[in-house]
Amino acid sequence: MTKPIILTGDRTTGPLHLGHYVGSLRNRVAFQDTHEQFLLLADAQALTDNVNDIAKVRNNVIEVALDYLAVGIDPAKTSICLQSHLPALTELAMLYLNFVTVARLERNPTIKDEIRARGFGRDIPAGFLCYPASQAADITAFRATVVPVGEDQAALIEQTNEIVRRVNALAGRELLPEAQAVIPRAGRLPGVDGRAKMSKSAGNAIPLSASPDEISAAVRAMFTDPDHLRIDDPGKVEGNLVFAYLDAFDDDRGMVEELKARYRRGGLGDSTIKRRLDDILQALIAPIRARRAELAASLDHVIEVIRAGTMKAREVTDRTRHDVTEGLGLFRL
Amino acid sequence: MTKPIILTGDRTTGPLHLGHYVGSLRNRVAFQDTHEQFLLLADAQALTDNVNDIAKVRNNVIEVALDYLAVGIDPAKTSICLQSHLPALTELAMLYLNFVTVARLERNPTIKDEIRARGFGRDIPAGFLCYPASQAADITAFRATVVPVGEDQAALIEQTNEIVRRVNALAGRELLPEAQAVIPRAGRLPGVDGRAKMSKSAGNAIPLSASPDEISAAVRAMFTDPDHLRIDDPGKVEGNLVFAYLDAFDDDRGMVEELKARYRRGGLGDSTIKRRLDDILQALIAPIRARRAELAASLDHVIEVIRAGTMKAREVTDRTRHDVTEGLGLFRL
Repeated sequence: MTKPIILTGDRTTGPLHLGHYVGSLRNRVAFQDTHEQFLLLADAQALTDNVNDIAKVRNNVIEVALDYLAVGIDPAKTSICLQSHLPALTELAMLYLNFVTVARLERNPTIKDEIRARGFGRDIPAGFLCYPASQAADITAFRATVVPVGEDQAALIEQTNEIVRRVNALAGRELLPEAQAVIPRAGRLPGVDGRAKMSKSAGNAIPLSASPDEISAAVRAMFTDPDHLRIDDPGKVEGNLVFAYLDAFDDDRGMVEELKARYRRGGLGDSTIKRRLDDILQALIAPIRARRAELAASLDHVIEVIRAGTMKAREVTDRTRHDVTEGLGLFRL
Repeated sequence: MTKPIILTGDRTTGPLHLGHYVGSLRNRVAFQDTHEQFLLLADAQALTDNVNDIAKVRNNVIEVALDYLAVGIDPAKTSICLQSHLPALTELAMLYLNFVTVARLERNPTIKDEIRARGFGRDIPAGFLCYPASQAADITAFRATVVPVGEDQAALIEQTNEIVRRVNALAGRELLPEAQAVIPRAGRLPGVDGRAKMSKSAGNAIPLSASPDEISAAVRAMFTDPDHLRIDDPGKVEGNLVFAYLDAFDDDRGMVEELKARYRRGGLGDSTIKRRLDDILQALIAPIRARRAELAASLDHVIEVIRAGTMKAREVTDRTRHDVTEGLGLFRL
């Protein structure tokens, strides 16, 4: 009875925030009891569009690892590993590039969206266009069958599975398992400014290390229902940012539904729901912030965790590389 | 007084032939006394357009190594190494893909020509489009400053140097040396059918393991001057395949010039010049063929040579990878 293998991770381009917490970190803490979990500090992938700011990519390796440990990722259950230190990943990626055409990469909807979002125009770094092959290498090297992704990234898993089928067909047997995309139910947390996605670069994020004042200021500034002028007026819950956050963070579902009903009827003030949200976020972040500060004071321990996770990951990924190159019949010294 | 480093190699897609001998192998035997020479068995690059015939790529690793040793490459002076077994090469290649745009790769004249020659159309394997980055990784990983290439490949060295300058600029110091393309004076040996390029796939090659009969048959079938009907007629030397081969292989330059003069005047028969060419090619190939057969009978030795060369190459290339990742400021565990 081996546990299914799950691979996720983050590009090391900035500390993580509440959007990550809702969309993935929270689930990962649960997954580590039911799955064999690997968390990839994706510094190599981060370089595909950050080559002019390598210091950012380097410095955030530790920041992201701190976030993982602070939210409750347990190194005894989850291997936190560093992408750039796993040579099997680049070897498989280069191999897989031979199994996918340039036209296919250009057709990938995720890549198309991201190229547009980044404003690359014609100046797309080749590494960026090729990262689906790199991601296929990551997933298959760990033999991950469960890959949590945002809904905008499901196309990447399909591309991985196309490569898997190609490799298996050439080998004449199932060298690699197909992976399944798991899209979190919680969906995406909007930014504190109401934009669809929370992101550090958009300046609308609450980081996991936010101070009490930062949290309160962010909650205070959130819009609710612009037509809800007096407490007694009926208010709208849909599109109301505070309720979106309560939906994401308030564990007392019954109370949230009751508050929504009262807000719709009229008689519930914005300050009341904001106070509730503030309390909840303060209670959520306080222990994370404390643990993060404690860990940051003993970075040697954090580096040791990454080193141990990377060593375990190296064993697993080297074995896969061996199986793939042997299975495909490449020359082996 | 360290020797300059030279890197060449061959895709492992078929045994080598007289075209390789004239264009590169002969020079490499000379270079090994004046340069620190690495010869790359480029099995990974061969996969970029041979992924559906991996057995061919695998089997020709040994064939090409046999050819190297048979023509006089001395493992004590030259390191024969296997590309797929040097992880630093793929790691640097993936890194370099971030320094080059897709548009730049598509503009590369060598790539454009080769895409046309292979009839890929829109179905260019991504690995094929990306191989200039891979070649840049090969060259820089060995810190090669001298890179013999065919005249159709000079653009690849320019692309390598663009990447080198980009890396050095980011690092703020000269992490990597620029490389210089060396285009052999001898030029290209035509095929035995008179086509501009000798190649196995065109079926117009004399392999280095050709039997005496194969050599004689090839020479007999060569065209000379179609208007040179009788011995006494004046004959043309330009476009005369036999003289093209004598120019390439006959060390007695004075005698070749005298024969050309006589042929032009009239009075020299095709059978005479063909006999001379046959003698020269038989004398050239006989010891290569014998040594090749001898080596093929002790493949363990050949594999040992590749293994030792690869280990030496691994040291050199791992050091470069270390220097580059450290110099660029990537995270290091």
